[in-house]
Amino acid sequence: MKQWMKNVRKVVPYTPGEQPKDKNIIKLNTNENPYPPSPRVRDLCRQIGDLRLYPDPAASELVEAIADYKGLDKDQVFVGVGSDDVLAIAFLTFFNSDRPILFPDITYSFYDVWADLFRIPYETRPLDEHFHIRKEDYLGANGGVIFPNPNAPTGVSMPLEEVEAIVAANRDVVVILDEAYVDFGGETALPLIDRYDNLLLVQTFSKSRSLAGLRIGYAMGCPDLIKAMCDVKYSFNSYTMNRPSILLGKASIEDEDYFRKTVDRIIATRTWFARELQELGFHFPESRANFIFASHESIPAKSIFTAARDAGIYVRYFEKPRIDHYLRITIGTDEEMRKLLQFLKTFIENAK
Amino acid sequence: MKQWMKNVRKVVPYTPGEQPKDKNIIKLNTNENPYPPSPRVRDLCRQIGDLRLYPDPAASELVEAIADYKGLDKDQVFVGVGSDDVLAIAFLTFFNSDRPILFPDITYSFYDVWADLFRIPYETRPLDEHFHIRKEDYLGANGGVIFPNPNAPTGVSMPLEEVEAIVAANRDVVVILDEAYVDFGGETALPLIDRYDNLLLVQTFSKSRSLAGLRIGYAMGCPDLIKAMCDVKYSFNSYTMNRPSILLGKASIEDEDYFRKTVDRIIATRTWFARELQELGFHFPESRANFIFASHESIPAKSIFTAARDAGIYVRYFEKPRIDHYLRITIGTDEEMRKLLQFLKTFIENAK
Repeated sequence: MKQWMKNVRKVVPYTPGEQPKDKNIIKLNTNENPYPPSPRVRDLCRQIGDLRLYPDPAASELVEAIADYKGLDKDQVFVGVGSDDVLAIAFLTFFNSDRPILFPDITYSFYDVWADLFRIPYETRPLDEHFHIRKEDYLGANGGVIFPNPNAPTGVSMPLEEVEAIVAANRDVVVILDEAYVDFGGETALPLIDRYDNLLLVQTFSKSRSLAGLRIGYAMGCPDLIKAMCDVKYSFNSYTMNRPSILLGKASIEDEDYFRKTVDRIIATRTWFARELQELGFHFPESRANFIFASHESIPAKSIFTAARDAGIYVRYFEKPRIDHYLRITIGTDEEMRKLLQFLKTFIENAK
Repeated sequence: MKQWMKNVRKVVPYTPGEQPKDKNIIKLNTNENPYPPSPRVRDLCRQIGDLRLYPDPAASELVEAIADYKGLDKDQVFVGVGSDDVLAIAFLTFFNSDRPILFPDITYSFYDVWADLFRIPYETRPLDEHFHIRKEDYLGANGGVIFPNPNAPTGVSMPLEEVEAIVAANRDVVVILDEAYVDFGGETALPLIDRYDNLLLVQTFSKSRSLAGLRIGYAMGCPDLIKAMCDVKYSFNSYTMNRPSILLGKASIEDEDYFRKTVDRIIATRTWFARELQELGFHFPESRANFIFASHESIPAKSIFTAARDAGIYVRYFEKPRIDHYLRITIGTDEEMRKLLQFLKTFIENAK
């Protein structure tokens, strides 16, 4: 038995009623309604399939589209309701050791929330003074490791050889890499999953695919990892991915040109915007994500945050130790960034 | 403090970035993509809103539509990804006592799965020989009570005064009534929720509203119950209801005529089909749901199930103690039920 399997939450999955693909079947086995939904619903949403029927619990069309796209087998892909759902299920599935799991002190703020919710012991490891994750901090005994790469809210990316060192040093537990922002210039650990059965990668359609409103996230890993997550997921809710998500998610994967074009545009805007920000007296670590985590040399982040908000420009401010001098600024369109720069320029001049 | 609050799972909810309603705000606070999704996605799904943005985490439009429809305040309604999601969150939120929760031995098969998954102690109480829930079984000390009304897979409904007796005897714990099938002729406990702060009702769009493919369920109860569930839900995933669900769910609620018409049609089909079934030698408890739970006087349910399946007609068979002589038959269209009756007639004659 693989060592990490000791800490998989043991569940007996619920067996949903069969969902045959043959349209000629008279389907009286899952208490669906034989009549279509209200015409008002149909008018709003023409082609997204027969909403009166349950979605495919395995979301196979979407799973297969992702697997094809990534060059994987379909038993190496798990889909969920946004990467939050995927990550929460991964926590529940894999983090059942008495040893604490490890993650950075400055990172995605849901990790400690899930650990508390599921009563998983955890310890945080501080980023260094440049907001880099120190790989040495993750090499000792632990109950599992999770961090985003690029990290959020810093945007800092870890090189693949450091990622591999962490994964290789933790063969007895599961290492989860949260790659929500990887498409904006990070380095995916996808080439490692065939060699490391303890590595789980999580990505999302919410950022680089412009589909935050649909809620689609996915995990990639060896078939045993994926199966363990499916067992837990099916114990919770068989049908989490609705029909619009499955159909529209697949359509997104099939349009590679558009995906590349918009991602490249955001990267170009980030490069230009970063230069402008620097000239205004901001400093920030190099970002490989669709945001920049920036601090001004003299003006407190909180006052910029509040004034920007009053001017109708929302950025994110976290009132937390070590990062309360920083703003997390999403990369919008060139025009949005120009308006923000114009605001900052005026605000900074007036503050002098 | 209300007694049942002792057993609410304590969590510190995650605070999502603000989702302003004003379209003029420059929104750079939640790392969404500034560009629309692929035109292929847009073509498939015209009017369901700007998919690149996160949905409203509170799904307010849908919550308000349900609250208006039910004559409630919006802080008395919780929505989730199908009633499975709502029920699972209710288990996680309310069932944290050392005493076992109680539910019937024959009931929805997810209850013991969730109890196992969340390590909640439970005991089952046997239905009587007519498949009725015995209210006396639920009056003693326990960690919480849950049952469907009408019950599944039996279709048997409990009168409101018996429901009230159970709720009144359990003021220190939460009683969850799973009303997934109530619209097909059951009696909702909605009039009780203003009097009992320990009563939570759960309903769904998957059956009576023909929207199984969208995944919408909801709970109704006093504001304290709803708030406790929201806290747990936000700790898990802020954005579970996607934009298509919110928009299309609301459209469904707004079309009362269509809802009534299709529900009435299913009830009429059930009445007619039940008579025919009886004439073929089946017996079954009176159903108030969109299915009939039937057993034949001489032919084993499993052999009918298998032969029907081979003939392209799917019904549900549970290989479980006490109910392995029964089939759960969803009420389809008149034509579907005629085909099923024709099949049964031939099959029974050949078996003689």
